[in-house]
Amino acid sequence: MTSPEPTPDATPNASADDRANSPGTKARADLIITRCTALVHDDHEQIGFVEDATIVVRAGRIETITTGPVDLSAADHPAPGLSAVEHIDARGQVAMPGLVNCHTHAPMVTLRGIAEDLPVEEWFNEFVWPIESNLQDKDVELGARLACAEMIRGGVTCFADHYFSMDTVAAVTAESGMRANLGQAFFSSQGAEGREQSLDFALRHRDTADGRITTSLAPHAPYTVEDADLAATARLAREHGLLVHIHASENRDQADTSLARHGRTPIEVLAGTGLLDTDLLIAHGTGIMERDLPVLARATGRIAVASAPRGYLKFAWPTTTPVRALRELGIPVGLATDGAASNNSLDVWESMALTALVQKFTESDPRWLTSRQALHHATLQSARAVGLGEEIGSLAPGRRADIILVDVSGPHTQPVHDLAATLVHSARSGDVRTTIVDGRVIMRDRELLTLDVPAIVREMSERMPALIDRSHGKRIQDYDT
Amino acid sequence: MTSPEPTPDATPNASADDRANSPGTKARADLIITRCTALVHDDHEQIGFVEDATIVVRAGRIETITTGPVDLSAADHPAPGLSAVEHIDARGQVAMPGLVNCHTHAPMVTLRGIAEDLPVEEWFNEFVWPIESNLQDKDVELGARLACAEMIRGGVTCFADHYFSMDTVAAVTAESGMRANLGQAFFSSQGAEGREQSLDFALRHRDTADGRITTSLAPHAPYTVEDADLAATARLAREHGLLVHIHASENRDQADTSLARHGRTPIEVLAGTGLLDTDLLIAHGTGIMERDLPVLARATGRIAVASAPRGYLKFAWPTTTPVRALRELGIPVGLATDGAASNNSLDVWESMALTALVQKFTESDPRWLTSRQALHHATLQSARAVGLGEEIGSLAPGRRADIILVDVSGPHTQPVHDLAATLVHSARSGDVRTTIVDGRVIMRDRELLTLDVPAIVREMSERMPALIDRSHGKRIQDYDT
Repeated sequence: MTSPEPTPDATPNASADDRANSPGTKARADLIITRCTALVHDDHEQIGFVEDATIVVRAGRIETITTGPVDLSAADHPAPGLSAVEHIDARGQVAMPGLVNCHTHAPMVTLRGIAEDLPVEEWFNEFVWPIESNLQDKDVELGARLACAEMIRGGVTCFADHYFSMDTVAAVTAESGMRANLGQAFFSSQGAEGREQSLDFALRHRDTADGRITTSLAPHAPYTVEDADLAATARLAREHGLLVHIHASENRDQADTSLARHGRTPIEVLAGTGLLDTDLLIAHGTGIMERDLPVLARATGRIAVASAPRGYLKFAWPTTTPVRALRELGIPVGLATDGAASNNSLDVWESMALTALVQKFTESDPRWLTSRQALHHATLQSARAVGLGEEIGSLAPGRRADIILVDVSGPHTQPVHDLAATLVHSARSGDVRTTIVDGRVIMRDRELLTLDVPAIVREMSERMPALIDRSHGKRIQDYDT
Repeated sequence: MTSPEPTPDATPNASADDRANSPGTKARADLIITRCTALVHDDHEQIGFVEDATIVVRAGRIETITTGPVDLSAADHPAPGLSAVEHIDARGQVAMPGLVNCHTHAPMVTLRGIAEDLPVEEWFNEFVWPIESNLQDKDVELGARLACAEMIRGGVTCFADHYFSMDTVAAVTAESGMRANLGQAFFSSQGAEGREQSLDFALRHRDTADGRITTSLAPHAPYTVEDADLAATARLAREHGLLVHIHASENRDQADTSLARHGRTPIEVLAGTGLLDTDLLIAHGTGIMERDLPVLARATGRIAVASAPRGYLKFAWPTTTPVRALRELGIPVGLATDGAASNNSLDVWESMALTALVQKFTESDPRWLTSRQALHHATLQSARAVGLGEEIGSLAPGRRADIILVDVSGPHTQPVHDLAATLVHSARSGDVRTTIVDGRVIMRDRELLTLDVPAIVREMSERMPALIDRSHGKRIQDYDT
């Protein structure tokens, strides 16, 4: 295990209290994590591990990461009248940045397993879009709660959500303690109203929940949103400084159909409508073609792709996200799960491992997409994909304290010859013991502190018959790429 | 969820004690599991689920599976002097046959993560085979212990092991409470001695550990064992009624090389040496070619293939086990992990999910390899692959009581629209709460009852520097397909 050079802010044995307190006030850090192995990035973004690390958190941010013994007597025994420091002894655990689910439809956990072993057309047209015409705010609320519970237990601290009734999802995000980038999805079939609602949502909710919620404009996809609406979205995004989050070139069929019908690939549609001139998060991109690469290259620095490889295998799509080509262009690829109605889980840890495995296979190269590369996708690249590249994605002084503690003492993760490999290929989401967002512990030793799963499941099951009824024969859209 | 017709032996509300006790003796069942949902197979091997099931175990076998309420007053309060019945209330849990790891090298967990992101040639020649020239019985013992701990926690109740120092592995298997089919691996480079030791091991250990250990002859592979030795192995297997467990046509390169050098595929070598006339477990088979299929077809009923799909992706092999072609021939495909030095875990649950995902992708068919098919591979086909098709692999009266209890109440497995999909695509090995082999609980509520992981890891770490030293420049074999 290599440890990068400590940065100036990560001086061994410089305690938070030494530097940050003005004399007499004795304000304490909010959280101190000791004796963990900390995953860090060096100046070249190479991943390393700091042994016996102490992480000090104050006001939601990481203040210091130091190595070596630390005097915790003050923390363990705060003087009367002072706020107690929360101390987590994390021996045998790895501290790493919380995972980011860069593209999901969180409330769709409600439909987990309802449409199995089907091609995507049938999945949409026979199940998901008919059922979604029954969707009520309450269904979204319960789904979002269950999704947050699942993600927190899987070490996900932030998610980029693209769905309906997003006021509800925002309220649940606030309640859950998670961080999220939220976008109200729209189709052109809704007329101008869909786009206006998406903007209204984005403006009302940006920087809410103590700053944990950021927002996007969320046109569904080039095959369901007309070029004029995409162009209007691009203008609004630039005007208001908003991210745009869209499905595009999801699979090869979509790209082929777009070419056949319009003479342009979905990526070329994004370029032609000005969306590649905005901060843009493209979901999937498994249909990205050779001719798209120079188009995408011109947008490097603004755009990112979210990859959810499990679903591509399950739908038997012929290709996956072209991670290597995107890397050569300098375009971040964040990890994602898509919704649980297709992916069956919101397990970003699994997405990390599958990204490594599927990429090796796809590129016929066992040396490609190493565990450290996978961890880079899971950390800095995912943070950048959701527009939070300066705020999260790394355990470093000044970053938001979105931290997970991963137990590597289990028989399936021992012995450790290469901790990056242990994390990517041996550990599982269930090995996350503690999840922290903005310095607040929202799962401790696998116990959820903000959500009540049995109550959510009970209420959800009462509503299920009405939700999944398809006898009305309606659907909210037609899938015809 | 569908429930198949109850079989005559699974009559609702017929308790074990009603039928099995002669008056006056009042002998009790050893274990009663109540209120679970039980995965069962109907007469056509279709998988179904029995709700509110009670499973009664006596003398290591399943005596009855019944549905509906059961009177447990006697079980809960045994009369003085009678052996107490162990009772597990498994509400919210699914009882299913324990998973079978159909091809592994259990002690190689010691090398988990030591040779990462490499082609198979380098993996063998630069790391694994040099390190294995240091291998001592004690290393094998500790590795086997850690492997059994990992497998028990992952719901694996039986494994087919193919390694060295197998007396040691047999002793650990006995100690762990697991079931195993064990084979002492050999190469032709050892001379006749290797084969003789493999036979000696197989005869000394068959049906030991109260019948939990069965044995195989274990030639390494056609590229390391000469035809004459393979032919001798086939004769010995027939003479002694032993299974043969061998790597063959592991990847396309091996098949191509075999054709180029000998004019025969590895499968044709198995046929020519008589091994296809024995009970044969073929590991991997990703290099099986079209011309091999009629050859294999003639051996249907005797042979099986073990598939470990994770490693094929990780080594970037171009193909995976041809599950669909093998199914059309009626050849069982069991699930496997291979060793943890390549697979990074012994997580058969993951092999089950990956088999479904990779097969859909490979066959370009999302309808193929449904969750129920995956569960069939995980249960009856895996049992058959290791020669225990009549003993394990199904929860049915008369079968050995190798049972796992899987918690599906977590947020990642709720709601349940299709329990087969929940198990295959949403649940994880870490959801196994209780593992039972031959009616004996060897993990209860995730606590291992037969193995001490911290002690194993401590001792292993002391031996590690000597084990992984490669300065001697030796290796036990050369990988040259």
